[in-house]
Amino acid sequence: MPQPLPPVSVLGLGMMGSALAAALLKAGHPVTVWNRSAAKTGPLVAQGATPAETVTDAVAASPLVIVCFTTNDNVTDALATVDLTGRTLVNLTNGTPAQARALATRAEKQGAAYVDGGIMAVPQMIATPAAYILYSGDEQAYETHRPTLAALGGTQWVGTDPGRAALYDLALLTGMYGMFTGVIQAYALIRTEEIPATRFSELLVPWVGAMLGAAPALAEAVDSGQHLTDVSSLAVNHAAFPNLLNTFAEQGISGELFEPFQHLLDRAIAAGHHNDGASRLVELLKK
Amino acid sequence: MPQPLPPVSVLGLGMMGSALAAALLKAGHPVTVWNRSAAKTGPLVAQGATPAETVTDAVAASPLVIVCFTTNDNVTDALATVDLTGRTLVNLTNGTPAQARALATRAEKQGAAYVDGGIMAVPQMIATPAAYILYSGDEQAYETHRPTLAALGGTQWVGTDPGRAALYDLALLTGMYGMFTGVIQAYALIRTEEIPATRFSELLVPWVGAMLGAAPALAEAVDSGQHLTDVSSLAVNHAAFPNLLNTFAEQGISGELFEPFQHLLDRAIAAGHHNDGASRLVELLKK
Repeated sequence: MPQPLPPVSVLGLGMMGSALAAALLKAGHPVTVWNRSAAKTGPLVAQGATPAETVTDAVAASPLVIVCFTTNDNVTDALATVDLTGRTLVNLTNGTPAQARALATRAEKQGAAYVDGGIMAVPQMIATPAAYILYSGDEQAYETHRPTLAALGGTQWVGTDPGRAALYDLALLTGMYGMFTGVIQAYALIRTEEIPATRFSELLVPWVGAMLGAAPALAEAVDSGQHLTDVSSLAVNHAAFPNLLNTFAEQGISGELFEPFQHLLDRAIAAGHHNDGASRLVELLKK
Repeated sequence: MPQPLPPVSVLGLGMMGSALAAALLKAGHPVTVWNRSAAKTGPLVAQGATPAETVTDAVAASPLVIVCFTTNDNVTDALATVDLTGRTLVNLTNGTPAQARALATRAEKQGAAYVDGGIMAVPQMIATPAAYILYSGDEQAYETHRPTLAALGGTQWVGTDPGRAALYDLALLTGMYGMFTGVIQAYALIRTEEIPATRFSELLVPWVGAMLGAAPALAEAVDSGQHLTDVSSLAVNHAAFPNLLNTFAEQGISGELFEPFQHLLDRAIAAGHHNDGASRLVELLKK
């Protein structure tokens, strides 16, 4: 007979928390669920989950407690007076590194091993090969529960600093938001002349994907501090960038998302970095 | 015996113009070159090009005249008083759609067929499979010279409006700059904790590439005006985005490149678009 899978409690049943609980149920774990408004437990109970009346009951039900609230303030509030002795708390709430570190300190005082996680997926991707979760914090607790966590998506350990997963998560989201900012602005521009965005996307996606191939070389320049380039200097970009802002204005769309990049290029040129590449801009963002 | 290839004149020998002339020479075309400062003709003459003393001489030497200056003002200045009768002018200078349209009108008055082009490559990529050039304007002239232009990289026709190639070019560059803005900011963030950007890029590149896969669906929503989403609503993004800005501040890097996106999300939520996806932001950029 196969061994029964370990029980898991899931606190917070928004779209993401519900997807996590459903994935654990589907993998065969006994799952206890709790949500601030109890109505959201319904669909999961129908899938086999056990509803808990209080956070204390939910925490008592499983050695592994997965938390996914809207904010880390919700995490602090929900767990403030709960005994966490012997529990591993895996906090998958989106937040900052500083919040994760503060929560780790509190959770450990309350008796828990703390693991922070950053989910690199939308709820619909949970438990598919495209989803993965970054983890950091208590490495032993992470290793103990890794087989269970693997039911949610790929597992990526990034270090013992409990804030590290949030830092990676936010840095990856930063890259994503920049990319989408470019896509959104490009669609707005192309649509000013009634060109279908769908047709344009057939050029845009391979182009941006190809240019993304320059990111590792840019990373090498950032790490080495060797900013000189013979490929695409800040002087060349500084000369070309006004064409974008002028065209946004001429075509009647807002340039608000792109104006700060012009100011950053202006600062780089004013400081004499004409012959450097984009890695120099990374330096200029330091305060 | 193979037919001799048609002659081409190249005006403007910056890094890009020099790469174009070199590619044509390598393909076997007789190439006449001109540059405002004659010193830049040297390396190309060594590769077999014929230097022209004046723009008029260069234009007289070939039925196909390729122009690649720093700005379209340079194009206007260089060609102001030159007879272009019977010539095809292919202008690969980076500029705006309005500039391309004005140049087409002028060139046609001076007797030329006008083709505008947008080069989707850095000079080092010219004549490699990774490079392509968008063309628009006089379609018959383009078709006549397409075999010659193919020596520079892939050819992509986008329409008879002479401003169309510049619009596509700038929209693609817009997507690229957005992506690099994200990469630069992400590297700045990850470097605040001494994490090598090179190691982080191993996660960043596949992540951004995977998220780029959502761009065609976003384009469909833009074209159809069906902005409602159940994947990643503006409300969810509006709740999460302050984590980015707060973390930039906490980690000591500038948030200047990302603050406008927060303001755009704020406007979207204030207007009641909580349940819409990012396609709604494209609408909000219209003035």
